[in-house]
Amino acid sequence: MPRYRLVVEYDGTPFSGWQHQRNGRSVQEALERALGRFLGEAVRLHCAGRTDAGVHASHQVVHFDVAREWRPDTIRDAANAHLRPDPVAVVAAFAAPQTFHARTSAIRRHYVYRILNRRSPPALDRTRYWHVPWRLDAAVMHEAAQTLIGRHDFTTFRASECQANSPIRTLEQLDVTREGDEIRVKAAARSFLHHQVRSLVGTIAQAGGGRWSVAQVRAALDACDRAACGPLAPAAGLTFVGVDYEGE
Amino acid sequence: MPRYRLVVEYDGTPFSGWQHQRNGRSVQEALERALGRFLGEAVRLHCAGRTDAGVHASHQVVHFDVAREWRPDTIRDAANAHLRPDPVAVVAAFAAPQTFHARTSAIRRHYVYRILNRRSPPALDRTRYWHVPWRLDAAVMHEAAQTLIGRHDFTTFRASECQANSPIRTLEQLDVTREGDEIRVKAAARSFLHHQVRSLVGTIAQAGGGRWSVAQVRAALDACDRAACGPLAPAAGLTFVGVDYEGE
Repeated sequence: MPRYRLVVEYDGTPFSGWQHQRNGRSVQEALERALGRFLGEAVRLHCAGRTDAGVHASHQVVHFDVAREWRPDTIRDAANAHLRPDPVAVVAAFAAPQTFHARTSAIRRHYVYRILNRRSPPALDRTRYWHVPWRLDAAVMHEAAQTLIGRHDFTTFRASECQANSPIRTLEQLDVTREGDEIRVKAAARSFLHHQVRSLVGTIAQAGGGRWSVAQVRAALDACDRAACGPLAPAAGLTFVGVDYEGE
Repeated sequence: MPRYRLVVEYDGTPFSGWQHQRNGRSVQEALERALGRFLGEAVRLHCAGRTDAGVHASHQVVHFDVAREWRPDTIRDAANAHLRPDPVAVVAAFAAPQTFHARTSAIRRHYVYRILNRRSPPALDRTRYWHVPWRLDAAVMHEAAQTLIGRHDFTTFRASECQANSPIRTLEQLDVTREGDEIRVKAAARSFLHHQVRSLVGTIAQAGGGRWSVAQVRAALDACDRAACGPLAPAAGLTFVGVDYEGE
């Protein structure tokens, strides 16, 4: 069966997350329904990174199999026509080999977390920020972040409902920069635990706000205890921005 | 009477524009009502740049007079509390001298126009773009833009309902750059005519799409005829991003 790979962008605000949850519509359902309408058969999507409710994607990657061949550009354009008015867009579509799997072929995931760090709430792009009205020191956040880089047991930064077999992950990047009132945290790893990025951001923000020392952030990692985590940063600030595949 | 100067951010999508129009709510009304609620008196706002329906601002400047003195930070925070849930925020507040006037003291206005130039519609930040699915050449748009710089009769690029006394304006900057799928047009002038930025963008986009030559863009200016203008670019792409004042 022909396999297709899509690059997908979405605003997570109205969705219950990528995957179907108890209540609310998922991005997966919206996209599967749009594709099914013109492909003439039900398709099952596999994605690179399952995002939570309210989390966005500028570059999610998915694949699916379908009985007959289609021009990739037709898939892209027809999907977008059927996705209206949902805030989901197929940015690109490609034919893919049967050896390609959006999730298991991925060797690195990239996220960006955005904080609006000023007294006033956001009026523009309000679904895209965590608004933190007290002063955060981005340099301190970055310093704290660097103590978490590497291969560790990330139990502290893992949701209690996380279904991964192991809490061991290798955090490759956690860079914090400020531009004006906006603080951006760039995170990269082969894979992340459930709520890991938001847990990491919430914890380094404790250091940035002067509530915790940098050493306390590292101690939270070493505790291997969910109770040692800082407050979970809100979903709105998080965007899945890319995925790397072997040999690309 | 004490005078205060505010920096205001807003998403123009739900508003009929800065100023009250026949129907719909204006940004001015929303902000005047929020201020009036805690100042205990009705205030009249004056702004640096009156934006149209659907046009955004990241840095609008306004001033108003009020009977008694207030701490500027109190004005900012109380206004924001009363503005909820409207997408309008007071980013900063300052005491201002009686010689300061948000509109007449301004010596330069800055706008940014954003085009999402790709086949697929935007799913993220959809209220902030003009979506152009056909290919635009940003370098050609920039070249065409440069033929419009300087002091000219901008009748071609002026709304028929424009109330300015003269169509003569000095366009100081009209720079076009591309980053990925996004084309940004930066415009600066002492003042602009009604619909001038959107008319300029719509016209240089004709050159960027290969429909007009660069010479035709300049000829449109020289025609001094509204009928020679390209199609008006949509409001959503436009953001008022700043204003310069003498001696600052």
